[in-house]
Amino acid sequence: MRETVRVRTARLETFADGVFAIAATLLVLELRVPEPSDDLAARLADLWPAYAAYVISFMTIGIIWVNHHALLEHCGRADRRFLYLNLLLLVAVAIVPFPTALVGRYILDERAATAALVVYGIGGLLIAVAFSGVFFYATASGRIIADTAEARRLRQRGPLFTIGLTTYVIAIGLAFVAPMASLAVYALTAAFYALPVLPLPRSR
Amino acid sequence: MRETVRVRTARLETFADGVFAIAATLLVLELRVPEPSDDLAARLADLWPAYAAYVISFMTIGIIWVNHHALLEHCGRADRRFLYLNLLLLVAVAIVPFPTALVGRYILDERAATAALVVYGIGGLLIAVAFSGVFFYATASGRIIADTAEARRLRQRGPLFTIGLTTYVIAIGLAFVAPMASLAVYALTAAFYALPVLPLPRSR
Amino acid sequence: MRETVRVRTARLETFADGVFAIAATLLVLELRVPEPSDDLAARLADLWPAYAAYVISFMTIGIIWVNHHALLEHCGRADRRFLYLNLLLLVAVAIVPFPTALVGRYILDERAATAALVVYGIGGLLIAVAFSGVFFYATASGRIIADTAEARRLRQRGPLFTIGLTTYVIAIGLAFVAPMASLAVYALTAAFYALPVLPLPRSR
Amino acid sequence: MRETVRVRTARLETFADGVFAIAATLLVLELRVPEPSDDLAARLADLWPAYAAYVISFMTIGIIWVNHHALLEHCGRADRRFLYLNLLLLVAVAIVPFPTALVGRYILDERAATAALVVYGIGGLLIAVAFSGVFFYATASGRIIADTAEARRLRQRGPLFTIGLTTYVIAIGLAFVAPMASLAVYALTAAFYALPVLPLPRSR
Repeated sequence: MRETVRVRTARLETFADGVFAIAATLLVLELRVPEPSDDLAARLADLWPAYAAYVISFMTIGIIWVNHHALLEHCGRADRRFLYLNLLLLVAVAIVPFPTALVGRYILDERAATAALVVYGIGGLLIAVAFSGVFFYATASGRIIADTAEARRLRQRGPLFTIGLTTYVIAIGLAFVAPMASLAVYALTAAFYALPVLPLPRSR
Repeated sequence: MRETVRVRTARLETFADGVFAIAATLLVLELRVPEPSDDLAARLADLWPAYAAYVISFMTIGIIWVNHHALLEHCGRADRRFLYLNLLLLVAVAIVPFPTALVGRYILDERAATAALVVYGIGGLLIAVAFSGVFFYATASGRIIADTAEARRLRQRGPLFTIGLTTYVIAIGLAFVAPMASLAVYALTAAFYALPVLPLPRSR
Repeated sequence: MRETVRVRTARLETFADGVFAIAATLLVLELRVPEPSDDLAARLADLWPAYAAYVISFMTIGIIWVNHHALLEHCGRADRRFLYLNLLLLVAVAIVPFPTALVGRYILDERAATAALVVYGIGGLLIAVAFSGVFFYATASGRIIADTAEARRLRQRGPLFTIGLTTYVIAIGLAFVAPMASLAVYALTAAFYALPVLPLPRSR
Repeated sequence: MRETVRVRTARLETFADGVFAIAATLLVLELRVPEPSDDLAARLADLWPAYAAYVISFMTIGIIWVNHHALLEHCGRADRRFLYLNLLLLVAVAIVPFPTALVGRYILDERAATAALVVYGIGGLLIAVAFSGVFFYATASGRIIADTAEARRLRQRGPLFTIGLTTYVIAIGLAFVAPMASLAVYALTAAFYALPVLPLPRSR
């Protein structure tokens, strides 16, 4: 059943960009308008954990999008397995609004902050694992990146993925003892991957 | 009124990719943040049917997207009838979040699981019928796929659609006696169509 | 301040396709999962007006998309005024989920069906007026369609817009005496515009 | 870590168009169907502030999209910093449905109108600052717009951004004394930027 044919990456990009853009934009639906009260300003200020979760998750999705973009710039063609690996990545990205809502709602609630942040971390781990799958298939299969020297050069960045996996595990551990520190690690992990860790193609 | 002209498939792909991506990403809105309670972790664990329904429906939509993508790679041009057949497919795909929410909410509810799974199956049947319509018009009309040998080769895959129609009918029947088995058949049907059943074009 | 320059229509198409696809796909959010009850099947059957409104509005948006697509196939370039006219069309299209929800919720409610259907008709009129604006600017300004013979040929289809305006006014009138007939006229208007009323370009 | 390579702007446009289109289309979710009552028409008329906020915010997003489109028409390539500056702009644009919902719900509520309009203005300021960042990096870095004469010509439009920043600050001030005047200034600011303030490329 092994196919020898491949397709353009254009529609994969459109579909992926759609899921990235929608997942990021749906985050705003978790910023809920407070019920009428004597002091709307105070009610709005109380929502700051939801704003923080919004910004961290939006930037996380955006940074994954930039790196996905950088990776796909190297890819000439896609085959079916590559499409499905990308699909797994998108399943994980699209779920982000749910743990984000949990963290925004519960990070100040002593009884619930740990559970919310653990779920957030599991979501992050799923994304990191799925992105690794996309990355290693693209750089190691010889079917997606035509230029093998370029593929080898990219593959040397592979150890970078263990950083994200490690920091997410640390953040999950911190969720049990210091919820705010856990959230900070999630934000710092996103900031780390905002560095140009995945090179763009030398020319196009 | 028969038009002899055709349009590029680019905007059909953009619009279809948009609907596929949005329908898949909206599924997350059915994962509802539990109300505050003494044990958020337990409340989150109770949501497992919603997570299962999320994953099955997202993968189903993603797999339909891959096959739609594979089919359209063969299509040089679209005419108005082809656009409308695709529109019927998209109506059916866009409705998926509703039966998914039903199944996620009610599969553990003895009184309601059957109705939820029957609606899920009807949604699946609508998609299967609409996709067959797109497929047979593309491969049989002589107006969408320019290369008649390629169209004939593709058309031989037609019987594959009866498999999905059959398994969905079986799953609807199972909904009355074994809800979990019914859900499993829906998941397996998606997995079957993830196989390379529709060939990609030999070259482009 | 008159600009003499124009831009490619590619991003207009992407943005418009996005709004069309999202507005159509958001309609599903108005299909609300019924609360737990002894008879979920009956509760789901009671939702038939919401399903009908969903299908009519999705097909209406899809048909407008096909005609917008057909019109833009003729357009070589866009200028700023054309972008804004399209933006007005998209404002009106994006509002469709609201009147659709009204009709789905209230068409069987004697006291409220009229108001819901009138709002639905006003939404339809806004779309019809905005689409006329896009159409007449494209075909009459000499700035959007380069080939003046083609522009003239298209412009002859202008009277078609009065049909939609007329039927929507009739449907608004019917809302006061026969709600179901009013809904049927909305559906028939969409079906009429599904005919190849706007020709596609002869070749591309 | 300075990269010397750049990528096509195509995927930036797709992702940005997606966020613009989704943020604009999600606004409709804040138009909430009124609960059953004896006079649905009156309930719907009472929603006029929500309609006004919907139209102002949709047009604001649409006008930003047109200007973003105009700017990117000049940009041959993007680098990573440019992608991140755009991401900051999209974070701010995607949040618009939240202040829009606040204004639509609370502008007639004496106790809450000020807070709602201040939040709306802060959202506007964030967008204005982020758009300035995108604009000045594109026109001043020498890395995004290849033609330096064109970049210089564009950069002369820089003072235009101080207008938006000023009017938003004025509108925030007005929120404390005259809520309706504040809303009017937000609408007028959008209308001002609908003028062809950013030139399109002379030819393409």
